[in-house]
Amino acid sequence: MIGRSSTVLETAAAVRSGAVSAMDVTQAALSRIAADDPRLGAFTEVTSDRALAQAAKVDAAMAGGGDPGPLAGVPFAVKNLFDVAGLPTLAGSKINADHPPAPSDAVLIRRLTQAGAVLVGALNMGEYAYDFTGENCHYGPSRNPHDPSRMSGGSSGGSGTAAAAGFVPLTLGSDTNGSIRVPSSFCGLFGLKPTFGRLSREGTFPFCYSLDHLGPLARSAADLAAAYDAMLDPAGKDEPVTPGLGRGADGLRIAVAGGYFAKGALPEAFEAVATVAASLGATETVTIPEAARARAAAYVITTAEGGNLHLERLRTRAEDFDPATRDRLLAGAMVPSSWYLQAQRFRRWYHDRVMELFANVDIILAPATPCTAPPIGQETMVLDGVEMLVRPNIGIFTQPLSLIGLPIAAVPVQRPGGLPIGVQVIAAPGREDLVLRVAAQLELSGVCAAPVPN
Amino acid sequence: MIGRSSTVLETAAAVRSGAVSAMDVTQAALSRIAADDPRLGAFTEVTSDRALAQAAKVDAAMAGGGDPGPLAGVPFAVKNLFDVAGLPTLAGSKINADHPPAPSDAVLIRRLTQAGAVLVGALNMGEYAYDFTGENCHYGPSRNPHDPSRMSGGSSGGSGTAAAAGFVPLTLGSDTNGSIRVPSSFCGLFGLKPTFGRLSREGTFPFCYSLDHLGPLARSAADLAAAYDAMLDPAGKDEPVTPGLGRGADGLRIAVAGGYFAKGALPEAFEAVATVAASLGATETVTIPEAARARAAAYVITTAEGGNLHLERLRTRAEDFDPATRDRLLAGAMVPSSWYLQAQRFRRWYHDRVMELFANVDIILAPATPCTAPPIGQETMVLDGVEMLVRPNIGIFTQPLSLIGLPIAAVPVQRPGGLPIGVQVIAAPGREDLVLRVAAQLELSGVCAAPVPN
Repeated sequence: MIGRSSTVLETAAAVRSGAVSAMDVTQAALSRIAADDPRLGAFTEVTSDRALAQAAKVDAAMAGGGDPGPLAGVPFAVKNLFDVAGLPTLAGSKINADHPPAPSDAVLIRRLTQAGAVLVGALNMGEYAYDFTGENCHYGPSRNPHDPSRMSGGSSGGSGTAAAAGFVPLTLGSDTNGSIRVPSSFCGLFGLKPTFGRLSREGTFPFCYSLDHLGPLARSAADLAAAYDAMLDPAGKDEPVTPGLGRGADGLRIAVAGGYFAKGALPEAFEAVATVAASLGATETVTIPEAARARAAAYVITTAEGGNLHLERLRTRAEDFDPATRDRLLAGAMVPSSWYLQAQRFRRWYHDRVMELFANVDIILAPATPCTAPPIGQETMVLDGVEMLVRPNIGIFTQPLSLIGLPIAAVPVQRPGGLPIGVQVIAAPGREDLVLRVAAQLELSGVCAAPVPN
Repeated sequence: MIGRSSTVLETAAAVRSGAVSAMDVTQAALSRIAADDPRLGAFTEVTSDRALAQAAKVDAAMAGGGDPGPLAGVPFAVKNLFDVAGLPTLAGSKINADHPPAPSDAVLIRRLTQAGAVLVGALNMGEYAYDFTGENCHYGPSRNPHDPSRMSGGSSGGSGTAAAAGFVPLTLGSDTNGSIRVPSSFCGLFGLKPTFGRLSREGTFPFCYSLDHLGPLARSAADLAAAYDAMLDPAGKDEPVTPGLGRGADGLRIAVAGGYFAKGALPEAFEAVATVAASLGATETVTIPEAARARAAAYVITTAEGGNLHLERLRTRAEDFDPATRDRLLAGAMVPSSWYLQAQRFRRWYHDRVMELFANVDIILAPATPCTAPPIGQETMVLDGVEMLVRPNIGIFTQPLSLIGLPIAAVPVQRPGGLPIGVQVIAAPGREDLVLRVAAQLELSGVCAAPVPN
C-alpha cells in the first residue's frame, strides 16, 4: 500500500506494475496535504488540477501499453523558486508575488515530469533563499514534522517539511550555503547537493550565481539517485548513478573531517558522525585546511552577489522585504569589490588544496548541522560555551564545502526517540556516485533512515 | 641585408639559409639599441650576455645540420611584466624592483626561444600596465620613434618603441584595455591581441585577471602570424594561422562599426577606417550595441580587480607608486562589489549580443585610437568639441572590444608624411586566422604598412 512513508521507488514500482493508479496516488497525496499542511506550512501553492491531469496522463500511458517513465505517478513538489507554469515564482518573497506567472516550468520540473512524476505544488522557503531556519515573515514558518514547534531548517524549509511529513516522497530544493543539507538534517531526510553546475538552473530564481545548486530531498538514497538520474541533461555526458548504487561503500577510502569540523557543535552532531564512521569502518581523520576562511569567503560571495541581484528591489521595494533579509542584502550591496575578489581568489586556492586531499580519500564525513532543529523563533544558542546567533551559525559545517561545489549527501542518522540530525557524506567534484553509494550502504546497514513522524 | 626595417620572417629566412649568422643579427640589434635607445627609452634591461649565448646556440644548431627553428635568430624583446629568468619582473613599477629575480622565463618567452628566437631585453611600460600613454614616472617615457616628443602609447609603450624603431622586429606586449593596440596605432605597427585565454599568461605579472591578454607587435601581418603560431600551446588544439594567411580577405563579410565607433574621434581616425574599408570593398555598417556601457564595464572590472591585486602594496608602499596610478588603484579598491558584479553581468549580455552580429559578418572594422600620438605630457584633447583628458580617452575604441575577449589585429594605415594611426580588424572569438588574413591582405594591397622612422 502506498502511503506517507512510501519511497519514490516503491511508488513508481506500484504504479508501473498496475497495483495502484497514478490518480489514486496523487489524490492521496493531495488529501494528506489538505489535511495536515495547514498546521505545517510546507506549501504556498497546491497545483491540484495540474496534478490530477498529469496523473491521468500517466494512467492513460499505462492503459495504452506505453512506458509511463521510471518515476511514473510519483508525486513531488518544488521549492517556490522553481518556475511552475502559470504561477509567479515567489522565491519566498512578497515582492515576487507581483511578478507575472511563469510561462513554463523550470528545466528540472520538465525532466521529472518527462520521467512520469507528478508535480503537486510549490513549497515555502526562506525569503530569497537567504535563510537557514525555514521561517518566513510573509508566509509563516515551514514547521518540522517531528515537532511542529521546531524549525524545518532553511532555506528549503518547505522541501524538508513536505518530504518528512510524507506529503510527497520527493521534493526539490536549492542549496547555496546549505539550504538542502540543513533541512535534510533537521527533518531527518536524505538530501543531495550535486556538484556545482551539474543540474540545470534554468527556470529558477537565483540567489548567488557562484554558489547556487539545485537538488532533491527524499526518504532514501536510492530515491535521490533515481531523481538525480532523471534530472541529468539527457544530451549531456553525465553517467546515471543508479546502476552502481548496489556497490555500497566497498573499496572506498573514507575519512572523518577533523579540525574545524570537530568542534563548535553540540555532542549529538559529533555522535552522529561517529556512528556513521564506525559503521563504515572509517578510522582516518583528514584536515580540510582553512575551513573557517572558506566559510567567510562563502559569506562574502553570497552577500555581495545577493546584494547585487536585489539592488533594484532594495531601492524601490525596501519596505516589502523581511527586514532581516533586507539588512543582509543591503550590507552585501555595500561590500567592497576587493573583499569579493579576495573571496573568489581564496576559493580557487582552497579548491586546489581540498583536491589534494581527494588524492588520498574518496569520501569525507562531517556533521551537517551543529544541532538538531531549534525551536522556531529561537535567536541564540550556545556552542562550545559561546552564545551565538542561531540563524547564521546553523550553516557552519555546510558553507565551507559548497563554496567549492563538492557533491554532498546529507544522511539522517537513526536516533530513536530523539530529533533527527544529519551527517554530510562528501566527495570530489563529479562523484555523486560515491556519496550516494555510501548513503545507500548506511541505509542498508540500518544506521541511517528517514524517521516517520508521529 | 638584415637591418632595422627587416621583418621577423626575412630575418629567420636569412639565418636559416646561412646568409647571415644569428650572432651577427643579434649583435646588430644590440648595437642599434645601444646607439639609439638612450634617447627613446624602450628598454629597462638589455640582456646582452643571454642574447649572445642564445645566438651562439642557434648558429651551433645550424652548423650541426640541425633545424634552428622557424624563428631562428630573430631578436625579440618583451614588456617588463614578463618574467625573464634572473631579472625582477618590474611591471613598470619601482616597487617590484625589490622583488627577487624571476627563477625562469614566462611560458611565451620559452616558446619563442624554443622556436629559435633570441631575447635581447625587457621593455619599458606604464606602471602596472594601468596606462595608455607609454609614460612612466620611474623609468621615463618610452618615446615614439616617428617623433620622440610624442607618446609611444601604452601600456606596452616600450614594445611599440622598440619594434617601430627597428631595434628588433618582434616584441611582446599585454593588452587589458588596449595596451597592444594603442602603441601599435601610435607607432605604426601591426599588433595582435588574441582571443582571451588563447595564449598562456603563466609567468607574467597580472593587472586584471578577467581582461589581461598577451600578444605580439611587429612590422607585418605574417610576422604576427609566425609569432602567434610559435606561442600556441603545442599540446593544445589551436590551429596555426600561418598556413591560411595567403587566402587574404577573399569571401569574408566585412563591415564597419557605426554608432559609438563613428564619433568622438579626430578625422584621421575615421579616414583610416574609410581607407581600409574601401580597400576591402566593405560597404556595410553594423552597430555594436551598448558600446559605451561596455567601456564603462571594462573600467569598473579593471579598477576593481587592479585595486584588489595591489591592495597590500597600496597599504605598505603607497609612496612608491606613481601618484596617478595609486589614485586609480585606490579608487578601484573602494568600488562596491555590486558595481563589479553588474559589470560582469553586463559583460555576459553584451558578449551574447555581439555574437549575434558575427552571425552575419566575419570582420568588423573600427578605429584603434581617436587620434595620432599626442605630445608627451599633454593632458587634455578636444574630441567632438569636448575637451577631455587624454590618458583615459585614448582607449575609447579599444576597451569595449577587449571586454569580451575578441581577437583583434591593429593595422597601420599608410599616411605618407603624417604620424601613424591604426585600425582595428575584429573577429569572433577564436578567429585569429580571419583578422590576420585581412591584415595580410591590407599589407599586400599597400594600404597598410609599418612606416620606417627617419
